[in-house]
Amino acid sequence: MTLEGVLSELSERVNSALNGYFDAKVEEARRIGVNHHEYYSRLKEFVLRGGKRLRPVSLIMAYNGVKGVIDDDVVKASLCVELLHNSSLIHDDIIDRDEYRRGRPTFHVLYREWYRQVKAEAAEHFGLSMGVLGGDSLFNMGFELLNNAPFHPSLVLRSLSHYVEAYRRLIDGMILDMMLPLLPSASEEDYLLMVSLKTGALFEKSIAIGATLAGGSEQQVSALSEYAQLAAQAFQIRDDVIGLFGKEEVGKPIGSDLREGKRTILVIKALEKAPLDDRAKLQGLLGKRSLTIQDVEEAKRIITSSGALNYAQAKARELVKAAKQKLKEVKPPLNEDAVAFFAELADFFVKRSY
Amino acid sequence: MTLEGVLSELSERVNSALNGYFDAKVEEARRIGVNHHEYYSRLKEFVLRGGKRLRPVSLIMAYNGVKGVIDDDVVKASLCVELLHNSSLIHDDIIDRDEYRRGRPTFHVLYREWYRQVKAEAAEHFGLSMGVLGGDSLFNMGFELLNNAPFHPSLVLRSLSHYVEAYRRLIDGMILDMMLPLLPSASEEDYLLMVSLKTGALFEKSIAIGATLAGGSEQQVSALSEYAQLAAQAFQIRDDVIGLFGKEEVGKPIGSDLREGKRTILVIKALEKAPLDDRAKLQGLLGKRSLTIQDVEEAKRIITSSGALNYAQAKARELVKAAKQKLKEVKPPLNEDAVAFFAELADFFVKRSY
Repeated sequence: MTLEGVLSELSERVNSALNGYFDAKVEEARRIGVNHHEYYSRLKEFVLRGGKRLRPVSLIMAYNGVKGVIDDDVVKASLCVELLHNSSLIHDDIIDRDEYRRGRPTFHVLYREWYRQVKAEAAEHFGLSMGVLGGDSLFNMGFELLNNAPFHPSLVLRSLSHYVEAYRRLIDGMILDMMLPLLPSASEEDYLLMVSLKTGALFEKSIAIGATLAGGSEQQVSALSEYAQLAAQAFQIRDDVIGLFGKEEVGKPIGSDLREGKRTILVIKALEKAPLDDRAKLQGLLGKRSLTIQDVEEAKRIITSSGALNYAQAKARELVKAAKQKLKEVKPPLNEDAVAFFAELADFFVKRSY
Repeated sequence: MTLEGVLSELSERVNSALNGYFDAKVEEARRIGVNHHEYYSRLKEFVLRGGKRLRPVSLIMAYNGVKGVIDDDVVKASLCVELLHNSSLIHDDIIDRDEYRRGRPTFHVLYREWYRQVKAEAAEHFGLSMGVLGGDSLFNMGFELLNNAPFHPSLVLRSLSHYVEAYRRLIDGMILDMMLPLLPSASEEDYLLMVSLKTGALFEKSIAIGATLAGGSEQQVSALSEYAQLAAQAFQIRDDVIGLFGKEEVGKPIGSDLREGKRTILVIKALEKAPLDDRAKLQGLLGKRSLTIQDVEEAKRIITSSGALNYAQAKARELVKAAKQKLKEVKPPLNEDAVAFFAELADFFVKRSY
């Protein structure tokens, strides 16, 4: 089956399992009262409003790669990483002060607006408080789900270790992300560390959980983890490129990284390679809240002419090549379907335009 | 040994284990960088700056009650509930906009002030963001610690279920706490539900984890859970009384519940029992931001003369009696030390003046 075929078939199974999972939670919450019923309904809407389900699908395919089957138990267990991912999105949206997520108001904004209708004052703070709790809930729900997964207790415990480690690194990555803009400069190493924590960890651990639940060997889990980290770095570099050179419709607003003062690989390399006056110009655009279209065009020119864009794209291709090499080192090898899926997924990470 | 003796000996062991635990975490964080080293050091300071360690000590005594020993493994495992408790304090301080905790700035305020020195603007938001992450970290650390506890995998999994359930209820309780002030009135039932979620859950689950790790039976865990819920309700009622009729030095500012518009049992009962004009007066004081000393005295008068104070105190005594009855229903019974500890602890909950 093609990558697209696998993604569409499995993400549909994941979505259907998510639906059933949340329906039960929403129903349970009714026992506490109407506010809790509404709270869990809103969490459901937030998680189900979209998303490619790359993490649960990767978890399922790693399981399939080791065990040769896709059963309902693994589909159900795979939801844990989607819940963790959405938990971090809710907290991240608070931290980044984002108002929209997947085309709709983000979780804390939904509650801010709800509160505004009940009571005029302090709606901002109320929304934010509910966002803190909403992220807490989703993380805990993913933990509960994996804890209850019907696999051998020692496999579940090892999977929970991966889950806990994913969150630890994710938090460490979010801290790094907040601290990097405070430094006078950031290196490519800082960048890659941040990516491995903030983007890589959960992708890596999704795959590790899938392989672990299938009874995979340490060697399999560790080679797959290396694959995942390399592919995730390529993914993030491509994300940075799309964020500046892509089309507005398909993601966050063009230039938002620049406005936030984010040290993307494009910015780091351009600040290394561009002529002195261009470096000063780019530095001046970093973190500029009132960024204009002309500013963005100027940044694109500096990044292109300095060779930073080419550098980043070559780097991404090289990472994908290394990732695919790691796939071949998984011993015993995964089944063919899984190998094809992960190889095509890595290719897709650098080819995609959304 | 007396209650005080047990509390002081075991809380010292807990503190020493916490110290060692955090030292290792702080050292590990050095590998990521100086900001992470500082972040984990601040988490350590926050957790270690005080607290009676009632939850880990209760966990240890439940384990001792079932198994007849106190070993290093259970002392180490007991830290999980202290980490969870502190996680919820950090998030709660954000939600309640509290600036101090145990006599020092709360976690998000520490980071707000740190940021102010680095960069003047948006310090409020930075502090809050670090507080969100700080609470996330501590919860995850408690989860990791219990996940790695050297007990039989099936006991660890069952203990993790209690841990996850404690957090679920805690969050549900915090939501209820935020929603109750929006209602025109609250009943004693609403209040008791909120207490069982916000205060009772973690106390109950601390004891359940201890009994479970010791290999206790379902019957033991369930009778102990009922004990814990009854005792926790008595504890909270006493807390409400101290919060209005106690001495300023030993806790939060007198009248702060009133200022926040909290529906304590005193307020709920006075609004039921007081003459109409007193009810209106008390209603007017609820949520009043500029509460004066005279206002507080007026509220105390209404609460006393309506019989609400007497009602609450009688209710607390009755709950303690019922809690101690439940202790006797634990089959097979806990060892003598544990029975004495939990009985005295329940008595202390309603006698304490701090």
